[in-house]
Amino acid sequence: MTPQSGSLAPLFDPKTVAIIGASDNMLKFGGRPIRFMREGNYTGTVYPVNPKGGMIQGLQAYKNIRDVPETVDMCVVTVPAPLVVAAVKDCVEAGVRSVVIFSSGFSEVDEQGVQWQAELDAIAKNSDTRLVGPNCMGVLNAASHAVGTFASSFERGWPKVGPISILSQSGAVGGHIMVLARERGIGIRNWITTGNEVDVDVADCIAYCAEDPDTKVIAAYMEGTKKPEKLMQAFAAARANGKAIVMMKVGASEVGAVAANSHTASLAGADAIYDAMFRQYGVCRVYSMDEMLDVAAAAAAGQFPNRNRLGIVTISGGIGVLTSDIAALHGLEVPELPEKTQKTLKALMPLAAVRNPVDTTAQMLNDMPVFEESLRTMLRDGDCDAILVFLSTIGFSERMMVQIREVLERVRADFPDELMILSMVSLPADREYLESLKYLVIEDPNRAIRAIAALVGFGRSFVKGGTGKLPPLPADAIAPPRRALSELEAGEILAKAGLPMAPGRLANSADDAARAAMEMGYPVVMKIASPDIQHKSDIGGVKLNLQSVDEVRAGYQAIMAAVGQHAKGAAIDGVLVAPMISGGVETILGVHRDPVFGPVVLFGLGGIFVEVLKDVTFRIAPFDLEEAHRMIDEVRGRAMLDGVRGQAPSDVDALAQALSQLSVYAAAHADVIESIDINPFLVKAKGDGAIAVDALILTQET
Amino acid sequence: MTPQSGSLAPLFDPKTVAIIGASDNMLKFGGRPIRFMREGNYTGTVYPVNPKGGMIQGLQAYKNIRDVPETVDMCVVTVPAPLVVAAVKDCVEAGVRSVVIFSSGFSEVDEQGVQWQAELDAIAKNSDTRLVGPNCMGVLNAASHAVGTFASSFERGWPKVGPISILSQSGAVGGHIMVLARERGIGIRNWITTGNEVDVDVADCIAYCAEDPDTKVIAAYMEGTKKPEKLMQAFAAARANGKAIVMMKVGASEVGAVAANSHTASLAGADAIYDAMFRQYGVCRVYSMDEMLDVAAAAAAGQFPNRNRLGIVTISGGIGVLTSDIAALHGLEVPELPEKTQKTLKALMPLAAVRNPVDTTAQMLNDMPVFEESLRTMLRDGDCDAILVFLSTIGFSERMMVQIREVLERVRADFPDELMILSMVSLPADREYLESLKYLVIEDPNRAIRAIAALVGFGRSFVKGGTGKLPPLPADAIAPPRRALSELEAGEILAKAGLPMAPGRLANSADDAARAAMEMGYPVVMKIASPDIQHKSDIGGVKLNLQSVDEVRAGYQAIMAAVGQHAKGAAIDGVLVAPMISGGVETILGVHRDPVFGPVVLFGLGGIFVEVLKDVTFRIAPFDLEEAHRMIDEVRGRAMLDGVRGQAPSDVDALAQALSQLSVYAAAHADVIESIDINPFLVKAKGDGAIAVDALILTQET
Repeated sequence: MTPQSGSLAPLFDPKTVAIIGASDNMLKFGGRPIRFMREGNYTGTVYPVNPKGGMIQGLQAYKNIRDVPETVDMCVVTVPAPLVVAAVKDCVEAGVRSVVIFSSGFSEVDEQGVQWQAELDAIAKNSDTRLVGPNCMGVLNAASHAVGTFASSFERGWPKVGPISILSQSGAVGGHIMVLARERGIGIRNWITTGNEVDVDVADCIAYCAEDPDTKVIAAYMEGTKKPEKLMQAFAAARANGKAIVMMKVGASEVGAVAANSHTASLAGADAIYDAMFRQYGVCRVYSMDEMLDVAAAAAAGQFPNRNRLGIVTISGGIGVLTSDIAALHGLEVPELPEKTQKTLKALMPLAAVRNPVDTTAQMLNDMPVFEESLRTMLRDGDCDAILVFLSTIGFSERMMVQIREVLERVRADFPDELMILSMVSLPADREYLESLKYLVIEDPNRAIRAIAALVGFGRSFVKGGTGKLPPLPADAIAPPRRALSELEAGEILAKAGLPMAPGRLANSADDAARAAMEMGYPVVMKIASPDIQHKSDIGGVKLNLQSVDEVRAGYQAIMAAVGQHAKGAAIDGVLVAPMISGGVETILGVHRDPVFGPVVLFGLGGIFVEVLKDVTFRIAPFDLEEAHRMIDEVRGRAMLDGVRGQAPSDVDALAQALSQLSVYAAAHADVIESIDINPFLVKAKGDGAIAVDALILTQET
Repeated sequence: MTPQSGSLAPLFDPKTVAIIGASDNMLKFGGRPIRFMREGNYTGTVYPVNPKGGMIQGLQAYKNIRDVPETVDMCVVTVPAPLVVAAVKDCVEAGVRSVVIFSSGFSEVDEQGVQWQAELDAIAKNSDTRLVGPNCMGVLNAASHAVGTFASSFERGWPKVGPISILSQSGAVGGHIMVLARERGIGIRNWITTGNEVDVDVADCIAYCAEDPDTKVIAAYMEGTKKPEKLMQAFAAARANGKAIVMMKVGASEVGAVAANSHTASLAGADAIYDAMFRQYGVCRVYSMDEMLDVAAAAAAGQFPNRNRLGIVTISGGIGVLTSDIAALHGLEVPELPEKTQKTLKALMPLAAVRNPVDTTAQMLNDMPVFEESLRTMLRDGDCDAILVFLSTIGFSERMMVQIREVLERVRADFPDELMILSMVSLPADREYLESLKYLVIEDPNRAIRAIAALVGFGRSFVKGGTGKLPPLPADAIAPPRRALSELEAGEILAKAGLPMAPGRLANSADDAARAAMEMGYPVVMKIASPDIQHKSDIGGVKLNLQSVDEVRAGYQAIMAAVGQHAKGAAIDGVLVAPMISGGVETILGVHRDPVFGPVVLFGLGGIFVEVLKDVTFRIAPFDLEEAHRMIDEVRGRAMLDGVRGQAPSDVDALAQALSQLSVYAAAHADVIESIDINPFLVKAKGDGAIAVDALILTQET
């Protein structure tokens, strides 16, 4: 009996459903699921359970779940909180495969509830029975109409069956989204709300849907997770199977409560790490329920271009400008069409603008063959990855729509796989018909473009596939020892881990320092090395830009004298001698062990970029070179690395290499490393590499 | 006969309408307006005009507009382009007050069209007749059903009558927005599309609506203007009358084509200046048609709080977090409720979260007295400026809605003026009823919050009112002479204009320099002053941080020697001696004469903020102190002025004073000034003021 080992198939697609607390009253939680299943022609078996026995809604009721004559796939528990633990124990004894607990009154309420929930937790850990909830709105299979929810909204009808599964921690939000989807005619497969998540959580549900052949798109709502690794595995599985995940994660405005004991940590709000994780796994993050459904519905059509060239055909010049603006905001290119294509279009429509956006003017609609041939030209010779067609309010003209439907039907027949989006008002029947031809119909052009951008994002993520090839750790890489580490030790450890560190040597006499300087070449810097001295330069413990043996000797004496005077009694390891490195673009690389996510890598440009603008970006370790490049491209000050004020472009490859290498090292020793700060990390001109000047490692207390 | 002097009242509210090119055919442009007016029970007089005479759609037709027996308020011209000029001349002769020209084939097409349009331009300039178009979709009075448009969409019904006027340069966009408004049941007053704008432009229409007692909200679409001053006057008039303007201005992705001959100019894309203008006049800029209608419909209710404290009541904790996130994005505060209020709420709902957002849980809806008392408590004791109530999909439950309507009715009776927004799905009849109670009903909570933020923006702008009090120019302020100006001259001119400039003196000998240095105090800087030498430091023409009379004398000699060697033949004005100023936050103040907008003031933080991040903001000159403060608050690096790395906060008041003063000076001499660059402008610690270290003025060539 592995903890939480049971499959979720009996939950999402049950053949036998029992209801503990079953009722004849349609208004009661124990009455509704039975009624819904009857009305929805659920073909599985439904077992009402009620201590009174007898008949409930025309079905034979059982006094206890243990009395039910066959193994139950899903049992819904609707009894009040004080009775839940006993009911669930009965379920486990009866071999029920999954239990959905509607009841509230658990950890969300008081100490008694916390205790009951702990009992449920123990039951889940020690059985194969999967528990959903408590304090949830339950589960629905929209195809079979297996109903494990008390949501009253089915009174207005069932959602259409389709490839989108909706998974939500919040019952209210999940219910709201399902109703919106139904009203918009968006097809749903699985629907679940996970509530207090004593066992089954959103990550489990994503993992299930990643393998569910009937789910193509996963639309999820979450407030947080304590098991990001599970979540990432689920994301990876979905990506591997080409399934799009649309994620609404709320809580961005709560600045993270991460215990901040390093520079990196103080910048890493929890939401920023979620955001990094979503980007890392190609999850499309959305910020409203409208946006979620727009993107999910678009993804359901299964067309995912991996380039971003958008062709726009519009009957309004103004909408052409508007859509170009919005495309730019969403990172879509609206490229000038090939010359030949422009010529063909110009021959068709002498008054049209043909560069892209193609503004046909409203005249096009008076000439259907021209409309058709324009579309064909764009599709055949436009070199675009998606075509947006703006038809304004034409959908309200029956006369026009007859002709437009015919054109679009013929065009789709010859271009079965092209991504085409119609932005227009439309009557439901027309929209349904056009969607059956795999046109996306999205009334508002801004929302259409946002959805296209999401599809491109998915396409690129699917092409990229997994985490890619991680750089290996060198053979002599070692874990940092669990104690305070000097700057010199930190540098040596990171150098062994494959990072380009400035060499340094500890000198214990002026002679020793002079020898070290001669070996590494002038100029050099010297710093007091002591675990007890924090602000070295403040007390005269640092000498920069020493040019000769005399200066080095004098520097050594001066440092020791200053330390003797200002830091009496400090333990002194010696004086660190290192080459004076200057030039290059100052950056910061960091690692922070997040209590939830584990090692997180930070990147930012130095100075005000980090300190004033908080212009940093994160990734969860480990990640490959490509991901490191994406990370670098995300900071606002990116142009610094392209060379400003006449400077040469920087060695971004070396920077990406270092970030990826650092991430691999951080992941390999996640159990020891508390934080790493490499600051500054100087990125030299292209071809000249990069080098870390200063580094600090904090290890976890044992 | 003043050019363009005719009022627009005959256009927007005509009592007599003529149609040149009138037709019996309902599909023709000359047939539709007549039919629409008949169907819409227009009570004015309609005169068909057609060379054939006879009866058209049951009305007596006239062979020429001059034959019409009374003065026509609006005449619609539907004849082909080659006949338009003659028809318009007839109209002018007939004393027609306004002419709407549908016909295309003008400047948007070819040279012939450009010429015809120039003729129309001349006619407009020399008569009191106002011309709309050509190449436009015309005009509609949604209350009287005076129809000067061929838009076919009225076949599906008229828009509801209401206080929103829609003004659009684009016919297609204007038509699309009107249809969306009609479908959403949003009330419209005036609707116009201005096309090629030979005479009447969007600014004229805004100015008209600003005074129109039936218009409360102006929703405008534009691609650009050549007369921003007219536009700004119209904005100011609307603001003075408390009318909200919602503006969709497209073209943000075309990076401005401003002739770039100064630093300021190269940063001032045209769109950024439009954006600045909108902010300056409290115009709410929107980026989609949905957003436009959301904000316009919300503004139509006429509630404009001028504080930003949002109270949220939700039946879902998840939505509470989501709405808090979105509120933060839109600059709304979700303040913790007063302790007393929290206590009252907790007593009502022991299981609720009462801090704000108030999460009542779904239980509230099972207890209507609790729902009602919660709302009353929030309104009475919540100290909020707007209350958002999220009721999810409850609007689909008839049983619930009966009760909720009753509660909301009673609450509104006791709180007639509070801004309350319901975020919920709703049936049309319920929505209409709730809107009649002045509740805003916006289904999506994100969109609801965006609209609330817009209302707060309007409220603040209305409170602020006009441009405020501009700082006066000092009595001895002078215009810059129209020639190349040296740094010293520029500094002196700006000092006279009231800006804090570092003093400087031109020295013509080492003695002279020493005297100057002694007068202004050490340390000083010295720079060669020559109109012929651009990169002064490159050739040794600059000496910094001179500490003594000897250093100054030696510096003078060294500069002259270097110049003699590296810049032979350059005209030398002397050596500029100025105090060495250091410390303070480096900023840049600039003026750029935009070919369309006139003098535009730029503000940015120095160094990478401007050079790498393009972190700058603009205002059209002149503007007051308050506007200058808003400008400063807009840059991303704003925190630099609060004191970073342990520095004291900067004297932001002195900075704002300088920006406002510069704007007044730039506006006063807009005819001479090409550009001003004050860089760096050092802002000292609070109380210590600010000072310009270097300045450049370019004047316009005569």
